[in-house]
Amino acid sequence: MAKPVTHNLHKLFNPSSVAILGASRDEKKIGNIVLRNIVNSGFRGKIFPVNPNSKDINGLTCYGSYAKLPEIPDLAILSLPSDLALELLEPIAKKGTKNIIIFSAGFKEIGPEGEKKEEELRAAAQKFGLNILGPNCLGFASTLSSLNATFSRVGGARGNLRFISQSGALASGIFDWARQNTIGFSEFITLGNKAVLNENDILQYWLTKPKTKITDPGLSRCQPIGLYLESIDEGQKFLELASKVSFTDPIFILKPGKSKHAQQAIRSHTGSMAGDDAVQDAAFAQAGIIRCEGVEDMFDLAKVFSWENAPKGPRVAIVSNAGGPAVISTDALEKEGLELAALSKNTKVKLEKNLPRAANVANPVDVLGDALAGRYHEAIEDVLVEKGVDALVVILTPQIMTEIETTADLIGKLSAKYGKPVVCSFMGADLIHTAEEILNKYKIPSFRFPERAIKALAKMWQWRSVAEKQKAQVKQKKQKLVSKHSTKKINAIIQSLEKNNKVLSAAQADEVLNTFGIKTPKSATINNLEEARNFAQKNKWPAVLKISSPFLMHKTEAGAVIKNINNNEQLENAWTKITAIVKKLPNKSNCFIQIQQQIGAGVEVIAGIKHDSSFGNVLMFGAGGILAELIGDSNLKMLPIDRKRALELIFSSKVYKLLAGFRNQKSYAVDKLADLLMHLGNLAQTTDRFSEITINPIIVTETDAWAVDPRIIVR
Amino acid sequence: MAKPVTHNLHKLFNPSSVAILGASRDEKKIGNIVLRNIVNSGFRGKIFPVNPNSKDINGLTCYGSYAKLPEIPDLAILSLPSDLALELLEPIAKKGTKNIIIFSAGFKEIGPEGEKKEEELRAAAQKFGLNILGPNCLGFASTLSSLNATFSRVGGARGNLRFISQSGALASGIFDWARQNTIGFSEFITLGNKAVLNENDILQYWLTKPKTKITDPGLSRCQPIGLYLESIDEGQKFLELASKVSFTDPIFILKPGKSKHAQQAIRSHTGSMAGDDAVQDAAFAQAGIIRCEGVEDMFDLAKVFSWENAPKGPRVAIVSNAGGPAVISTDALEKEGLELAALSKNTKVKLEKNLPRAANVANPVDVLGDALAGRYHEAIEDVLVEKGVDALVVILTPQIMTEIETTADLIGKLSAKYGKPVVCSFMGADLIHTAEEILNKYKIPSFRFPERAIKALAKMWQWRSVAEKQKAQVKQKKQKLVSKHSTKKINAIIQSLEKNNKVLSAAQADEVLNTFGIKTPKSATINNLEEARNFAQKNKWPAVLKISSPFLMHKTEAGAVIKNINNNEQLENAWTKITAIVKKLPNKSNCFIQIQQQIGAGVEVIAGIKHDSSFGNVLMFGAGGILAELIGDSNLKMLPIDRKRALELIFSSKVYKLLAGFRNQKSYAVDKLADLLMHLGNLAQTTDRFSEITINPIIVTETDAWAVDPRIIVR
Repeated sequence: MAKPVTHNLHKLFNPSSVAILGASRDEKKIGNIVLRNIVNSGFRGKIFPVNPNSKDINGLTCYGSYAKLPEIPDLAILSLPSDLALELLEPIAKKGTKNIIIFSAGFKEIGPEGEKKEEELRAAAQKFGLNILGPNCLGFASTLSSLNATFSRVGGARGNLRFISQSGALASGIFDWARQNTIGFSEFITLGNKAVLNENDILQYWLTKPKTKITDPGLSRCQPIGLYLESIDEGQKFLELASKVSFTDPIFILKPGKSKHAQQAIRSHTGSMAGDDAVQDAAFAQAGIIRCEGVEDMFDLAKVFSWENAPKGPRVAIVSNAGGPAVISTDALEKEGLELAALSKNTKVKLEKNLPRAANVANPVDVLGDALAGRYHEAIEDVLVEKGVDALVVILTPQIMTEIETTADLIGKLSAKYGKPVVCSFMGADLIHTAEEILNKYKIPSFRFPERAIKALAKMWQWRSVAEKQKAQVKQKKQKLVSKHSTKKINAIIQSLEKNNKVLSAAQADEVLNTFGIKTPKSATINNLEEARNFAQKNKWPAVLKISSPFLMHKTEAGAVIKNINNNEQLENAWTKITAIVKKLPNKSNCFIQIQQQIGAGVEVIAGIKHDSSFGNVLMFGAGGILAELIGDSNLKMLPIDRKRALELIFSSKVYKLLAGFRNQKSYAVDKLADLLMHLGNLAQTTDRFSEITINPIIVTETDAWAVDPRIIVR
Repeated sequence: MAKPVTHNLHKLFNPSSVAILGASRDEKKIGNIVLRNIVNSGFRGKIFPVNPNSKDINGLTCYGSYAKLPEIPDLAILSLPSDLALELLEPIAKKGTKNIIIFSAGFKEIGPEGEKKEEELRAAAQKFGLNILGPNCLGFASTLSSLNATFSRVGGARGNLRFISQSGALASGIFDWARQNTIGFSEFITLGNKAVLNENDILQYWLTKPKTKITDPGLSRCQPIGLYLESIDEGQKFLELASKVSFTDPIFILKPGKSKHAQQAIRSHTGSMAGDDAVQDAAFAQAGIIRCEGVEDMFDLAKVFSWENAPKGPRVAIVSNAGGPAVISTDALEKEGLELAALSKNTKVKLEKNLPRAANVANPVDVLGDALAGRYHEAIEDVLVEKGVDALVVILTPQIMTEIETTADLIGKLSAKYGKPVVCSFMGADLIHTAEEILNKYKIPSFRFPERAIKALAKMWQWRSVAEKQKAQVKQKKQKLVSKHSTKKINAIIQSLEKNNKVLSAAQADEVLNTFGIKTPKSATINNLEEARNFAQKNKWPAVLKISSPFLMHKTEAGAVIKNINNNEQLENAWTKITAIVKKLPNKSNCFIQIQQQIGAGVEVIAGIKHDSSFGNVLMFGAGGILAELIGDSNLKMLPIDRKRALELIFSSKVYKLLAGFRNQKSYAVDKLADLLMHLGNLAQTTDRFSEITINPIIVTETDAWAVDPRIIVR
């Protein structure tokens, strides 16, 4: 998709004048709703309704055509059928307006006919240099520019939360939820079909514009970004931008499409293509993006990130008036990767003094069922003072004597006093509703189920720990990865391929790997037994005889690999067998017999490069041989990788247990394997003509790592 | 824990008169609250407040002592300090009352001193034949007997949901939630410390009493049981009772204690011991009990099981006015093990006729963002009529034109008309609140997040499919598993052990297994090389030489197993090596050298019996050798098992892939392995003196399954 190099979106999101094309007097029409929304949101700029059939709408002068407008609006909003919207792009552009929101449906999402229209729209945008949000979107709302340019009910609370949603419908749900929970946005942008502007343009805009943070009491110090995206068009750019964001501000995403059926549903309703989900997981993790497991997760994160600073460590204290929920929360802490803070002796002594004898002064602190607000106050304060506590979870069940609202109020005050992240779980419904409103007022996130409180806290810690790690990594100087000489050689080999051949021969593949310092066993392509004997004489036994063919994927199963050849007699037998197999092969072109020196005992692993259409090259590593399918050991890292990341990849694999020296066995050359993976990563970045590289197996011996059977496919 | 053989709990839960000891005029005291609760819940029996300091309380005559009561109350409620409660048991019993609720805390949960009191309480119950609920409990509430005998606010709605909660605090939260969601209970029982009555007594009571089901419109046809239990005292009995329940009614449990820390918290606050969590998972699954992943899960299940009948199959249709949430739901369906129903051509034609052109008529059905109630009506009706649809999920996002309440109303009507399970996800907050109330009125479960709706539906299907399977299994005649002769032989071997020896010798272990038809390789205990040679001469090469010792757990690592001995020369070498190792062993008593015929190539698996203190014997099966630790292949079934269950266990393992013939290799003797597992299960049930049996490895060849290295420990 071609698009202007830079979108300056400042005037789109901060216009001083807005025109509404398709403005209407009919209160049920979108063209009326958006007009009222703009007026009611307190927009301080000029508003120009445009409609040939009206003189005025809601007390505002209405203009018969765009050309007749008294000045050039910064933003034009189109609430018109798709054909009319398309026709109007030229007059709008001619007038001088650069920023447009198109609500209209009837484009890509309805099939081939709509796709054609969307193509026209994109062409017009390109021709006239237009920033277009949509089509098929809900517009945007900004409390920074006091402008609700949507046809939805948007809450007016100010806040630092930013949001990008591809779906307008989901946005309606979020607005409603946010209003009830008093969550404030700064900018909420819906993308619709993303014909011109996509998530990357918005992220870019946010990264470059000056920070405009609200510092209302109770708000967190960051400007979190929530994303709902069904497709990611330019994955690599997206990761690059998101990495920059996650450095200082949390960024969390709900990206559906994990299941096969969901992928079909996405296609049928937005025409988008869903990428490979495992690649996305790896990519998001590396960029410091928190992936939400569902809508509820997304809402929970919007709340905690808006209101609380991320904890500085994983040590959590729990204060509860009920043993059961405390136990449940302890389970949840462990499940989510947090730790139950160990309270110091000093804190325990204080708690013992302040709480009744039957109370539990170890973490989780049980203030008992008859705890009044005062007892909560003592326990919370004692725990928040403790150095070994990074965050606090307060649990309350509405027992008959519980002072629910007073407790909520004191939590708010103590949280402000000590500045550590506090999340609550007031368990119940009507009885705890008023207390929830009090907690909302203090901007203390409360969840009706303790597991949700803890999960949200865990994701905050996840964000912070990744961000800290990133900061440490950025300080390292980037190494120069690829030499000109290597690049030249690789390109020469690829260019030497015959036109219809996309698969490198075994010898070519070996050469490509060797160029990047990856070791392959000595081998030769042979035409007769004599040549095989000569090879074996020059090199050491044992030898391997195998068939090299682009059409033979599962060599072992086909009997196309004969190992453990220890002398001439065995070599002769093997030759007879393998030539017999070659004769039976259906497709003999590009089919060679290869002799290879056999690598000694070691652990078999697989490594490969996969090209993801959205996120680029990804390096896969895992157990090889029979283990591969049994243990499902597929571990991914996005390229480029350095040695440290290569080691991380190895450490995260299941096969590492074997490599590290399982059951008192000797350990294998993990360092050499890390080198190999790093070299493989560098190789993959040399040219964009690789579509797949697989080395299966790599044999890792006690001293080295050997690429035994590489397969390279180009495009 | 000794207890009366049968508890007749009818009068406990359906008393015609209730005495409250510790009744109080002070409105803040529990003794006043419970009195008011009883009066306000519409209890039609007699109420006797007992308090030496009052003449009347809330207009009821108050009695100075239990002895002075004008008649014998069916139920006595004790709202008094623990010491006083203990003292009063005798006068209560002497009067003739058999049923008692003790609210008082200060027993087991506070430590050794309280444990002593609880022991006294139990002794009194035993002596006088008392049914005691508690101590440290919240009492019970029953809409069947119109009696709220708790000191908590309980909603008065009638329903079929039954609940047992060990925690009173959690019960308070559930009551509040149920009231807001208009969920009706029949009986809600809290257990507290379970000094006398526990979950099994309640389940037994429910199983034996006549069914008293309410058939209000909108309610499901079943009487679901929800459980919150921190400990399960008599696991085997519990499973037996729960199996009977789950046959006709869903039974779901929240059982915390998965994490190490949670186990400590449970101990410190109720003194209960948490069992092994994996065993519990296996046990619950086999008994048809649905395990909740958290509190929210438990609440969701309470709602769906109360209001909807479980779907007859896994095929789900989705109708949505928003593409995004439809995609999210499709993901969730696959994750939860449900299926996206394939709509018939006929249904699609109808949908095409009824919906606008841009709508998606394949499942998930997208009625588009501008759908009014009428369009929802058409789509829902078309889909509910379809034979290939077992359940329906309706998703609604509050868009500007959406007729939220009207849509809720028509869903209620259509659900009643077609009788298939319908769950909703109206996404939002204030905007959809009234619609939620309408859905509640129709008893249509609605969830603010589509994932929760689908998860609840999936658990309903899980319950039904297990119940169906159980019904099929019960029809099979139970086989006679163990012969008298075998039992006698096993007991003789165990009794022959020396007093301090708990481990059977290799020969003894072999003999035990052989008695139950489990094959072991030919072997002999040898004292010198000559005997080894004789053995090898009589049997075929290759042979294995190994050390048999109760103190040698990891033989291979210690070099205590020498395989592949193919001739006398190799045997001599092996003898020299192994005797050298024996000399170095720190503990030589009970240490023998064994020669064994070597079993040919095969797959190595592990099987074992573990005795769980609560749930009894469990059979473990999985991959053996090096795979065992790499792939974590631990699969459990509770004993007893038949051949079918043994096969299920094998099929559910990861190593089954290897056994079934991986990558075109030959398959192994899975049938013989199933026999072995079944025999092992039978063996374990012979006596309660086995504390552990492990066979590692079992070698499964193409024709047979051999127990190569059994280890049997008794107690």
